[in-house]
Amino acid sequence: MDIVDYYNWRYATKKFNPKKRIASSDLELIKEAVRLAPSSYGLQLFKVLIIEDTSLKEKLLKASFNQHQVVDCSHLFVFCNYTKVFENDIDLYINTKSKVNKHPLNELQGYGSFLKNNLLKKETTETSIWTTNQVYIALAHLMTACATLQIDSCPIEGFDTDKYNTILNLKERHMNTAVIAAVGYRSNEDLTQNQKKVRKASNVLFETI
Amino acid sequence: MDIVDYYNWRYATKKFNPKKRIASSDLELIKEAVRLAPSSYGLQLFKVLIIEDTSLKEKLLKASFNQHQVVDCSHLFVFCNYTKVFENDIDLYINTKSKVNKHPLNELQGYGSFLKNNLLKKETTETSIWTTNQVYIALAHLMTACATLQIDSCPIEGFDTDKYNTILNLKERHMNTAVIAAVGYRSNEDLTQNQKKVRKASNVLFETI
Repeated sequence: MDIVDYYNWRYATKKFNPKKRIASSDLELIKEAVRLAPSSYGLQLFKVLIIEDTSLKEKLLKASFNQHQVVDCSHLFVFCNYTKVFENDIDLYINTKSKVNKHPLNELQGYGSFLKNNLLKKETTETSIWTTNQVYIALAHLMTACATLQIDSCPIEGFDTDKYNTILNLKERHMNTAVIAAVGYRSNEDLTQNQKKVRKASNVLFETI
Repeated sequence: MDIVDYYNWRYATKKFNPKKRIASSDLELIKEAVRLAPSSYGLQLFKVLIIEDTSLKEKLLKASFNQHQVVDCSHLFVFCNYTKVFENDIDLYINTKSKVNKHPLNELQGYGSFLKNNLLKKETTETSIWTTNQVYIALAHLMTACATLQIDSCPIEGFDTDKYNTILNLKERHMNTAVIAAVGYRSNEDLTQNQKKVRKASNVLFETI
């Protein structure tokens, strides 16, 4: 199977089998695919909460317009974008870059200062819009990795952001719930699995110049 | 190679080999992966311009802070998000859904009305932020498909959006340049290909609850 076959296989699962759990080795592969997602300047200004706890899932269900994928899935991934960039975020990146590539730290400080000058002054809304974009790349890596493992997933934007942020204590950590994804295995009863994919024709979506 | 290997293989290419072009069969696979990218309600509220024309690439170079990937790549993908949702966009989706799944159109009209009630009244900024998020999933599909074909890519946010929109006549079409991606083959001289990937440790990026 090539990547197009995997993308044809996957669909937004509406009903999960609540008894079927993801194997931990598969979970590690999915996490690694998310971890490798590219981001602006490589800064990875987001965190991913992986919810397994049933009572927490139940709380989140109420903040998700009762969409049952949130509780029936094996693991609920909550992608949290940063709403503010701190000096520490850039120092962490520069320090890691120095270590990983055995590059003297002092030679990277100029680039660090450039990033700080550009990013620390950004206000919350602008920062949040920008970091949310990166999160959607990470979300796509999650869905792609799942598909290659024949694991089902459903990205969900329909939730109450404020309630999620409160339940998960994100605001005080300068984070925001950008998007969530339910991951697990489809129920046999999920009729949407039989529907054909609806997409624009290639000559409508693309223009070659 | 599994998906994690492909994600480890890819990197943001800084210097392309301007003589090496993508085969048209590969281009079709990349386009198909982008076309299959999931989007909110399946509406695909974006268009992808594929720039091959050298003189147009030269014009865009000036609007891209002189980042030479824009001209040296084989194909430049310009992801344009919609800034407004029109009735036609929703009708196209509903009509396609009806045809593809042989579902009577009149049974889908209720859902169409629900979408129209929710989306047509959204103002430009809100619409644009939302449709841009979807575009980043499509961008990730492009980068992923490229990696599986051992084709290089470089996502670029550093460009003058207004100039791009003007050069490509997007504003009058209610579109906006969200992000671009240079696609082609790396130059041997691109030293960044030798650098190790810099990523946060898994226990920093993820929290399991």
